Amino acid sequence: MKIAVVGLGYWGPNLVRNFLSTDGVEQVLCFDANSNSANRAKKRFPMVEVAESYEAILRRPDIDAVAVATPVSTHYKLGLQALKAGKHLLLEKPMAARVEEATSLMEEAEKRKLTLMVDHTFVYTGAVRKIKEMIKNGEIGDVLYYDSVRINLGLFQHDVNVIWDLATHDISIMNFLLKQKPVSVSAVGAVHYNHMEDVAYLTVRFANNLIAHFHVNWLSPVKIRSIIIGGTKHMVVFNDMEPAEKLKVYDKGVEFKEKESIYSALVQYRVGNMYAPVIPDKEALSLLAAEFIDCMKTGRKPITDGQAGLNVVRVLEAADASLKSGGKVIELSDKR
Amino acid sequence: MKIAVVGLGYWGPNLVRNFLSTDGVEQVLCFDANSNSANRAKKRFPMVEVAESYEAILRRPDIDAVAVATPVSTHYKLGLQALKAGKHLLLEKPMAARVEEATSLMEEAEKRKLTLMVDHTFVYTGAVRKIKEMIKNGEIGDVLYYDSVRINLGLFQHDVNVIWDLATHDISIMNFLLKQKPVSVSAVGAVHYNHMEDVAYLTVRFANNLIAHFHVNWLSPVKIRSIIIGGTKHMVVFNDMEPAEKLKVYDKGVEFKEKESIYSALVQYRVGNMYAPVIPDKEALSLLAAEFIDCMKTGRKPITDGQAGLNVVRVLEAADASLKSGGKVIELSDKR
Amino acid sequence: MKIAVVGLGYWGPNLVRNFLSTDGVEQVLCFDANSNSANRAKKRFPMVEVAESYEAILRRPDIDAVAVATPVSTHYKLGLQALKAGKHLLLEKPMAARVEEATSLMEEAEKRKLTLMVDHTFVYTGAVRKIKEMIKNGEIGDVLYYDSVRINLGLFQHDVNVIWDLATHDISIMNFLLKQKPVSVSAVGAVHYNHMEDVAYLTVRFANNLIAHFHVNWLSPVKIRSIIIGGTKHMVVFNDMEPAEKLKVYDKGVEFKEKESIYSALVQYRVGNMYAPVIPDKEALSLLAAEFIDCMKTGRKPITDGQAGLNVVRVLEAADASLKSGGKVIELSDKR
Amino acid sequence: MKIAVVGLGYWGPNLVRNFLSTDGVEQVLCFDANSNSANRAKKRFPMVEVAESYEAILRRPDIDAVAVATPVSTHYKLGLQALKAGKHLLLEKPMAARVEEATSLMEEAEKRKLTLMVDHTFVYTGAVRKIKEMIKNGEIGDVLYYDSVRINLGLFQHDVNVIWDLATHDISIMNFLLKQKPVSVSAVGAVHYNHMEDVAYLTVRFANNLIAHFHVNWLSPVKIRSIIIGGTKHMVVFNDMEPAEKLKVYDKGVEFKEKESIYSALVQYRVGNMYAPVIPDKEALSLLAAEFIDCMKTGRKPITDGQAGLNVVRVLEAADASLKSGGKVIELSDKR
Repeated sequence: MKIAVVGLGYWGPNLVRNFLSTDGVEQVLCFDANSNSANRAKKRFPMVEVAESYEAILRRPDIDAVAVATPVSTHYKLGLQALKAGKHLLLEKPMAARVEEATSLMEEAEKRKLTLMVDHTFVYTGAVRKIKEMIKNGEIGDVLYYDSVRINLGLFQHDVNVIWDLATHDISIMNFLLKQKPVSVSAVGAVHYNHMEDVAYLTVRFANNLIAHFHVNWLSPVKIRSIIIGGTKHMVVFNDMEPAEKLKVYDKGVEFKEKESIYSALVQYRVGNMYAPVIPDKEALSLLAAEFIDCMKTGRKPITDGQAGLNVVRVLEAADASLKSGGKVIELSDKR
Repeated sequence: MKIAVVGLGYWGPNLVRNFLSTDGVEQVLCFDANSNSANRAKKRFPMVEVAESYEAILRRPDIDAVAVATPVSTHYKLGLQALKAGKHLLLEKPMAARVEEATSLMEEAEKRKLTLMVDHTFVYTGAVRKIKEMIKNGEIGDVLYYDSVRINLGLFQHDVNVIWDLATHDISIMNFLLKQKPVSVSAVGAVHYNHMEDVAYLTVRFANNLIAHFHVNWLSPVKIRSIIIGGTKHMVVFNDMEPAEKLKVYDKGVEFKEKESIYSALVQYRVGNMYAPVIPDKEALSLLAAEFIDCMKTGRKPITDGQAGLNVVRVLEAADASLKSGGKVIELSDKR
Repeated sequence: MKIAVVGLGYWGPNLVRNFLSTDGVEQVLCFDANSNSANRAKKRFPMVEVAESYEAILRRPDIDAVAVATPVSTHYKLGLQALKAGKHLLLEKPMAARVEEATSLMEEAEKRKLTLMVDHTFVYTGAVRKIKEMIKNGEIGDVLYYDSVRINLGLFQHDVNVIWDLATHDISIMNFLLKQKPVSVSAVGAVHYNHMEDVAYLTVRFANNLIAHFHVNWLSPVKIRSIIIGGTKHMVVFNDMEPAEKLKVYDKGVEFKEKESIYSALVQYRVGNMYAPVIPDKEALSLLAAEFIDCMKTGRKPITDGQAGLNVVRVLEAADASLKSGGKVIELSDKR
Repeated sequence: MKIAVVGLGYWGPNLVRNFLSTDGVEQVLCFDANSNSANRAKKRFPMVEVAESYEAILRRPDIDAVAVATPVSTHYKLGLQALKAGKHLLLEKPMAARVEEATSLMEEAEKRKLTLMVDHTFVYTGAVRKIKEMIKNGEIGDVLYYDSVRINLGLFQHDVNVIWDLATHDISIMNFLLKQKPVSVSAVGAVHYNHMEDVAYLTVRFANNLIAHFHVNWLSPVKIRSIIIGGTKHMVVFNDMEPAEKLKVYDKGVEFKEKESIYSALVQYRVGNMYAPVIPDKEALSLLAAEFIDCMKTGRKPITDGQAGLNVVRVLEAADASLKSGGKVIELSDKR
């Protein structure tokens, strides 16, 4: 397989590095319209060919796939060109700037039987896969709530607000972990320094009494990256800032006895052991790269396929609509 | 001064203990309709007289004040009786179950020139007073956001939801700290085990771009009690679970240069020292008791007076309305 | 049972409080030569009789036992008087100022068939009993090392150095936990402000390759109370400053394959799950009080009997000898 | 400058990477007797020339300097050869296996006016340089004690014990930070799996009442890297495992009033603010590389010169002697 990485800003070089060490990858090429970025990459990866233009890449029949790591506003155009040129496609998250764009890319890929994959990196981390396993095998029980915090000082984006920048990660993780489908979204936020929200709170509701909530913030003095998942059988805390023991599983809960009157309801707390499972520490991006190669070879759908990408964009788009309407609840359509 | 503490469940005995060691308190009496609670108190405080009935307390002319630590649904009735009997009144938080009740109590107290105080204990903690000082003297700068988390496994209440139980603390702290007045409230939550919300998120908006947000939860496997206040000059993290260094003050922020175009905006991060100020560790409740005594003597308004109590109930009532309407934004009236 | 608590400084009132709520205790009396301390106790415990003198207590035939919570230099004299007066005896830790004194108290108690118990409180904590259970049932495997840190700013003692003050706790815990008997002691320390060591390091060696080490410090800006026990099967970290999860059990270790040459030795690391067992949070002192009562009634030896007290004093005395000799290794005698 | 890195195991590639991006470095070569290591380096750094032999490097007149990152037992031989071939020399820590070797290397370098530098990387970290600054400018006051813990599961070394492996770092840090010179060393340890100590405690004494102590351990289930420095004016805690706020400076201490009698001594605790200074996060190794280049050019002594290397080896050698004698105090000679 020969893969071209397009966009060599912050994330692109990580893709280059990982594809270089992925089995089945014969050659890695790269391109960035910004010559500084291209030169930096050339210096760091002397063995990687820097293409002259995006078109030059698309014209080469020996190149199997394109990985697009450019700003989100360009994903649709660049992605569609790649698919139309017959290339498999890996898109940086979020997949596209609008639901329609995402749908259109999916259709194009299906029509041409090309692999379309979205780089939801966190889905490939050991911790997230471990939680998925615990939800699947019943260890968590029914999920009651999902609470996520991703805050930090920093990296204001010019073209997207803090939800598109940070919550994208968390929505992709939530969608991967939960069996249920979100039915509505609401969001509140505040703009302080630029025309984009830098602090925001997002609520996602489901058909049952499950509630998910996300706090994202570019103005926090402390860096917090945590997810709490409350289940009927176990509760999980995922603290990504911990160097060890990122995941803690609590045998805690509430036993609520049926009651004759309100005041005679018997609430009992179950407080058992906590444990921190061993988590394989393979780099997520290397697993993602291997998944991409394997899907191109076998034709199967990637774990983070176009649909997964679309599902995230749908929530993001609804969040924007809610922000604009002052926090109104936006129903998610059932389509596709 | 002679003070009668009514209601000897979880909190009442703390009031008894603190009044016993407050200068200016001559005698402490107590009463609970539940004889078990009364007996436990009698055993723990052999020097405290247990009254026979609430009416007996109100009839005694030598008793100056009544402190009511019963369930919130009874505050209005018991409080009004006390005021009408000419007693100064300390009410457990929240002050009342409805805005009208709170207003009515305020009017009665004003008419009779009696001290009406609400036990917003946290306002008297060293940490909260320290933050107030930093906001007052300009160290924080303009407040950009206020983020509060109070979650834990436990203590389901029978008569109120998790917002009334836990967010009451945080709204009283916020109201005390911020100069601005809240203009609207919205809330989302979920009911899992009983007919009351056990997980909830509350958003409070202000006239400017300041946003406040509260996460309260009875179903969390970990105990978190933190407040982050982002200001233009300094940012503060108050972690009440830390045994030492509860308060951390960060010289961090964003410098946003005026921009010619979106992409040329110059964002600079300011990352300076952090410091943890020494916090006086006097028990909050003992300061509150002293404040009550002093206000009765001097006739001045307490820091946490009826108005402070009303302001909290107004937000709580709006939160309930929002919960019922699926998260609608509820404007707060300007009255009183 | 009627029990007299002698010495009402920092610790004595805790004994009074616990004996008051211990089944089988009919009456608690107390005494302190310092009238201020006696008056404070009288105010706090109005139901407790304050004796006029120590001799008055010893003369009363209805008093079964004496609990001595005075400075260590007085333990021997007061304890011996009590035993000679036929009273059961609970001694604050450390049991005595010298090995000879401890031995003499033991002999007196044995001769008179009286209960002699030492208040090694930590031995009765849930965490320490849990570790004991894990060592007993083989979960830890062979203990390889025992590392203890107890440091803090404060509470310089006038009559003893930091080893007698702080390491006493840790030696009593270690002796309780480990099956092996210590064979030698060495200690280094430094004196900065007074004539007593305020920083010290203590090493205890055993017959096999087990090593125990203790860091005690009155001059630390941070409070650390931790014990790490490395075993062949599991390793335990006991962090007493954690509000929850004080105990963490690690399935970690080293597998060392027999080697043909030095360089071909195969070291493999075993890194499995960590878990934090639930720990019963009964107050240690209430268990100790119940143990004392039960031993007096049944005549059986307490868990922390005179021998346990002597074993601690023997290490402390050796530590002093080592300090004086600049860190020489002091062998512990096998006697008694 | 052209620099050859010899030894491409764990650390050598880091030297290659840093020299590649250091101003003034024209070319980086490398060599490892083990062809696997050489090939891995060739793959990772395609732009770096792999030499055929060590001798080939020494013969090339265009090569200015050799950086030796081989096992410590080979440092002396390889280093001496390099100096005799007229090359400047950077030696991995510890500098040599014996004091005599270190002295001999220093003499050779001085005779030939070549730069001799030791890679005590930690000395170049932002945190350590910050502490040095605080000690120098008097903020710490007199240093009372120095307590260091560096423990972890792992990486048993085949040729050296845990003191040579881990305490080397800490001794180099201590020597850099403290003005005083160590006068004696004692060490205790235990051997569990191999013929080398895997747990050890090291005490270093100074002329005054300053005491330094080091806990190093290959068998700890948790990773701790901390240094506490107690000073008369401020106390510093350096926790290298913290992602942010590695350094905390405490305005804490003891005021000890002169006393008339032992019991009337007035001890007062000073508890002021804590602060965490901003630490420049430049990679230590890049600063070290720049220092090496600058010293070669200017002829000045590096911060971590041969003398600094010798001072560390002297403590390590004394620690070994103490371990062998069961913990005896070994005086450090004053020579050189």
